[in-house]
Amino acid sequence: MPKALITTVPFGDKNPLPLRLLERSGIEYLINPLNKKLTESELVDMISDFDVIIAGTEMISKKVMDAAINLKMISRVGIGLDSVDLLEAEKQGIVVSYTPDAPAPAVAELTIGLMLTLLRSVQLSNMEMHSGKWHRFFGRRLSEVTIGIIGIGRIGGGVLQHLQGFGTPKILLNDTIPNQQLSKKFNKEHNIKWVDKKTIYEQSDVISIHTPLTGQTKNMIRKSQLLSMKKDAIIINTARGGIINERDLYDVMKAGSLSGAAIDVFDIEPYNGKLQEIQRCILTSHMGSMSVDCRTEMEIKATEEAIRFLTNHPLEGLVPEEEYTVQREGL
Amino acid sequence: MPKALITTVPFGDKNPLPLRLLERSGIEYLINPLNKKLTESELVDMISDFDVIIAGTEMISKKVMDAAINLKMISRVGIGLDSVDLLEAEKQGIVVSYTPDAPAPAVAELTIGLMLTLLRSVQLSNMEMHSGKWHRFFGRRLSEVTIGIIGIGRIGGGVLQHLQGFGTPKILLNDTIPNQQLSKKFNKEHNIKWVDKKTIYEQSDVISIHTPLTGQTKNMIRKSQLLSMKKDAIIINTARGGIINERDLYDVMKAGSLSGAAIDVFDIEPYNGKLQEIQRCILTSHMGSMSVDCRTEMEIKATEEAIRFLTNHPLEGLVPEEEYTVQREGL
Repeated sequence: MPKALITTVPFGDKNPLPLRLLERSGIEYLINPLNKKLTESELVDMISDFDVIIAGTEMISKKVMDAAINLKMISRVGIGLDSVDLLEAEKQGIVVSYTPDAPAPAVAELTIGLMLTLLRSVQLSNMEMHSGKWHRFFGRRLSEVTIGIIGIGRIGGGVLQHLQGFGTPKILLNDTIPNQQLSKKFNKEHNIKWVDKKTIYEQSDVISIHTPLTGQTKNMIRKSQLLSMKKDAIIINTARGGIINERDLYDVMKAGSLSGAAIDVFDIEPYNGKLQEIQRCILTSHMGSMSVDCRTEMEIKATEEAIRFLTNHPLEGLVPEEEYTVQREGL
Repeated sequence: MPKALITTVPFGDKNPLPLRLLERSGIEYLINPLNKKLTESELVDMISDFDVIIAGTEMISKKVMDAAINLKMISRVGIGLDSVDLLEAEKQGIVVSYTPDAPAPAVAELTIGLMLTLLRSVQLSNMEMHSGKWHRFFGRRLSEVTIGIIGIGRIGGGVLQHLQGFGTPKILLNDTIPNQQLSKKFNKEHNIKWVDKKTIYEQSDVISIHTPLTGQTKNMIRKSQLLSMKKDAIIINTARGGIINERDLYDVMKAGSLSGAAIDVFDIEPYNGKLQEIQRCILTSHMGSMSVDCRTEMEIKATEEAIRFLTNHPLEGLVPEEEYTVQREGL
C-alpha cells in the first residue's frame, strides 16, 4: 500500500474530500502530527518510508531526500518552490508537481485588504477603540496614491485587476519578464508604467511584493532600499519571507521610517520576532492562500496529482523546466 | 466682523486653507476648544453670538438655535443631516448647506477594506501575531460571497463600483428609491438583484449599510433582523450610529451569532461601550470620510459656502427640499 506524508497543516480541515480521495485510492496517509511547519530535522525524522510528500513550505533538502528511502514524488500544495531543492530531486529521480493557479485569487484579495487597512490605520483605530480611546486617524485613498507592484504573475496580476475597481491610480510595475498580456492600450488607460525597482522604491506610496523567493530576490529589500522609499511609504509582503530582510525592516521602522507595513510571510514560521513590537506593522500568519475555496482547491489538486502519480496516470501539474533553471543558475 | 463657530474637529489640520479663506474674508472664527464632538448643552454654552456654524455631526436642535442669538446659517462639513433639526432651522430662517459629494469616495474605500479585513480575520491574526501566537485563520473571498448593500446613493454606489474589480460576486441591493442609473444591462452583467431588506438579511454573507439616519432607518436592524442573518454573516455600518441597534448587536454577537462586524459610527461619539469586549467586532472612530483628500475637500467646500453666505454670494450647497420632507414626514 503506497504511503503519503501530508506535511502542510491544516489539511482537510474545511473540506475532507482530499482525505476521502486518498482513502478511495487505497493510499495510506499521515497528516503532520506536530501540527506546525516542520523544520528540516523534524521532517528527516518523520519521512521514513513514505512514497509521496503532499507538501507545504517546509524545507525539502538533500538531507530530507537522503533520509527518504522510498520518496518518489513531491506534490506541493501551493506555488512557491523555494523550499524544494529541485536539482537534488532531479538527481534522485524524484518528481515534483505544484498547484500554481489555486492560491492566487486569495493572496491578491488579502493584499488589497492590507493596502486599505494600512492606508486608513484601521488596525490602530480598532486597537485603540477596544481600549476606550477615540482618535480619528487621517488616511489616504487607493485612488490617489502611487502603487508599485514588483512581480506581475498570477498574484500581482490579480492585485492589478482589483485595483481597476478603484478608479485609475498611478501604477508602477516591475518584473524580470514584463507581462506581455498587458497591452499598450491597457497600460495607457490605467496609467501603468513599467519601471526599474529603484523607481518603484523611490516613487511609490504603496509597494507590494509578488515575486518568488529565489537567489535574485532573497534580501532584495534591505536597509538601503527601505531608506530610499518615501518616509510615509507602505510596504506589503504576502510573497515569501526573506525577500524583505526582516531585521532591516525592524530597524528602519523602529527608527521612524515607513508609515506602515504588512508582513504575512517570514524567514522562520511560526514567526516570533521583533516586528511584534511595531504596531504599525500588521502581522498575519501566512494566510495569503487561506480562503476556504482556494485552500480547498490547492489541497484537492495536490492530492489528485499525488494519486495520479501513484496510480500511473499522466501528471497535470509538473513543475516546468524554467523553475529548475532558476535554481540551477541561482537566479 | 462676522463670526463663525467651527464645531467639527479636527479642522484645518492637514491643510490650513479653510482657515486662511476665513481670515482673508475677514471672518472671525473659533475652532471647538473641547476638541471632541459636542453634546447639545456644550453647544448651547458655546454658540453665543456666532453668525454661522461650520458643523460636524453634533446635535443642532431647537434648544441650540434658541440659544444662538445671531445664528443665520449652518454649513455642514459632510452629508448626514440627522443631526440638524431642519424644520426648526426653516422656522427660524436659518439657512442650511452641506457637502454631500465630498466624503463618499473615502467612505466607500474604507468599507471595502473592512469587508476584506473581516472576511480574512486580519485584525484577529494581527493581534495574535503581536503577542506571539501563530494560528492560520481560514477566510472567504469577496469574489465568492453574496454581498448585500442597503442604500445605493453616493457611497453605496461607490462600494458597488469597487466590487466590480473583484470579479462578479452576487450582489443584492435595496434602497427606498432604486437607483435609475444602474441599467438593466449593468445589473445583469454584474449579477445584481434588487430585493427587499428581508432578503438581504437572510441571504447575504456580507451586509453593508449606506443609508442616512432617518425616522425610517433608526433601529432598522434590531435583534430580530440580526438573528435572521446567516450565522456567519458579516455586518458593516459606516453610515450612522443608531441604524443598527448597538445593544442588540452586542447581545447577538456575545451569544455567538455573526462571524464579524465593523462599526465606524455610534449612538454617542466618542464611543465607550460594550462592543469593546468583542474582538471580532472591528471598531473605528468615525473615520469613514477621514482621508486627507476627502476631508480637506469637505472642509474647504463647507467653508467656502459659509463665506458665500456671509458675503452675499449665491449658495452652491443648499440642502434640497427632499431632506426637509424626510424630517417633516418622519420618514
